[in-house]
Amino acid sequence: MSIASMTQSCGCGVNWLVSREGVADIHSSADGGSVKPKIAVITISDRASRGEYEDRSGPAIEEVLREYIATECDYQRHMVPDEVDQIVGAIVEFSAQGCALICTTGGTGPTLRDVTPEAMAQVCEKMMPGFGELMRTASLAVGVPTAILSRQTAGIIGNSLVVNLPGKPASVKVCLDAIMPAIPYCIDLIGGPYLEGNPEVVQVFRPKKA
Amino acid sequence: MSIASMTQSCGCGVNWLVSREGVADIHSSADGGSVKPKIAVITISDRASRGEYEDRSGPAIEEVLREYIATECDYQRHMVPDEVDQIVGAIVEFSAQGCALICTTGGTGPTLRDVTPEAMAQVCEKMMPGFGELMRTASLAVGVPTAILSRQTAGIIGNSLVVNLPGKPASVKVCLDAIMPAIPYCIDLIGGPYLEGNPEVVQVFRPKKA
Amino acid sequence: MSIASMTQSCGCGVNWLVSREGVADIHSSADGGSVKPKIAVITISDRASRGEYEDRSGPAIEEVLREYIATECDYQRHMVPDEVDQIVGAIVEFSAQGCALICTTGGTGPTLRDVTPEAMAQVCEKMMPGFGELMRTASLAVGVPTAILSRQTAGIIGNSLVVNLPGKPASVKVCLDAIMPAIPYCIDLIGGPYLEGNPEVVQVFRPKKA
Repeated sequence: MSIASMTQSCGCGVNWLVSREGVADIHSSADGGSVKPKIAVITISDRASRGEYEDRSGPAIEEVLREYIATECDYQRHMVPDEVDQIVGAIVEFSAQGCALICTTGGTGPTLRDVTPEAMAQVCEKMMPGFGELMRTASLAVGVPTAILSRQTAGIIGNSLVVNLPGKPASVKVCLDAIMPAIPYCIDLIGGPYLEGNPEVVQVFRPKKA
Repeated sequence: MSIASMTQSCGCGVNWLVSREGVADIHSSADGGSVKPKIAVITISDRASRGEYEDRSGPAIEEVLREYIATECDYQRHMVPDEVDQIVGAIVEFSAQGCALICTTGGTGPTLRDVTPEAMAQVCEKMMPGFGELMRTASLAVGVPTAILSRQTAGIIGNSLVVNLPGKPASVKVCLDAIMPAIPYCIDLIGGPYLEGNPEVVQVFRPKKA
Repeated sequence: MSIASMTQSCGCGVNWLVSREGVADIHSSADGGSVKPKIAVITISDRASRGEYEDRSGPAIEEVLREYIATECDYQRHMVPDEVDQIVGAIVEFSAQGCALICTTGGTGPTLRDVTPEAMAQVCEKMMPGFGELMRTASLAVGVPTAILSRQTAGIIGNSLVVNLPGKPASVKVCLDAIMPAIPYCIDLIGGPYLEGNPEVVQVFRPKKA
């Protein structure tokens, strides 16, 4: 994955069109074989990306996603520092690779180095404010008043849904319990693969008329 | 109504000032007679506007509005495809005609052709995020987890309140049950006509101090 | 306080950097003595700022803040008309003076003269949508359906948290009951002073891992 090369060319409409062509290429692969849905987890952290501490959030999110999504998927993980260009570059690259779902963790707070929402605004075609509203509401409901300090959101780029998640597994589950019922149908709508939820932990919802 | 002619000149502050003058003209009509409040319903749909299927949402919304608003109003309906320019043009035109309330249906989802929120951001002077938050919350509360996929919002242009509604009558009622109590006072505040709710279905709220 | 002189130079990244240097200067004051945390209350009202009526909201908000925050602080109050430049100028100036918390009241409604959210968008480095969402939700929960007409929000500039509050003391308490638990930790995160809440009226929350 050439994250570095993408970093220079992301964040504008023209290059994004290039990414969409990339997606199309992947979907019409020469061998014609069935391709497993792709899911990416991006850990956004200056210190983790410098190796100053182990990234625990990324693996934890992958583990929770594997529990919540019944469909067998290809999972990829990546780390970037809290830099808008590098966050944008990673999202563009994973979208170009055909990832249906791109989850980030980190960088949504109020500090100077928290720039994930700024990267989201730059890279996403459409923002989905309902995701952030509901994740904050769900976190507040389990007794975390500081949930309002999270600027987490979601958005669409090409055929990919990008969602900002918290870092701690317990918090990730609180958020996914709230938003996962809507994620597979969202991915249907944007032309992504058909995902099924694990009915033991989540009840995925698809409107009858759709 | 000359939607076509408006389409070319909307979406910038200068032309919007022209629209406001239009509103003033209507309000100071030569005959000086009492004018019924005006309400518009815009159906935003590529297929309905091409005649590929019948627009059921527009008439359904008009029917629900007639039930919720006790004041006798003039209702107009219009259809546009999912194009920012044409959505903007229709909203500008209805605002210029003096519509107190402009309801749209369609185009608030995550797909490539869903551009109603982008048109709203371009045409509205002020966005009213509380409307979208509450409509999503109300829809979630009646068991529709995919409510978070709706990017519906509301905003102000001139003396008009613009609100994005869903298409299905049942969903429209869920949203109006939530937001209608605040709509007449909002229209008071922006210089529109005095609207009364139907107390059998909605309790309109006006602060005492106002 | 030279609000007038700031008005000309605010609202862009470059000048904001100047403001941050101002903050640094204050924090490294020559005498080295302990400095009480600073809190500012800005009343935004054309009529109050022209002296047409007495500003009751500003003093009421200061009184409520003194009740909710146990730490002894320096409070300042200021009035500006409903003009973006002057609102921006006042926020920039108070941030430059090292205010940890800047509360505004007024100007968040839908009318032509309500421009506080526009000033917030211009002056704040980061918007904190969770504050507005929660304040509206809390106001709705106590039976004020017109809470959705408030476009109140919060944001960060330098080391200051800026929060838009309502004007009536009862409404201020409803909002602070909701958001105050998260405010001291937010101020910790952005490099401000350590504030303690009054446990008789508010339970301040700081995550254990933080």
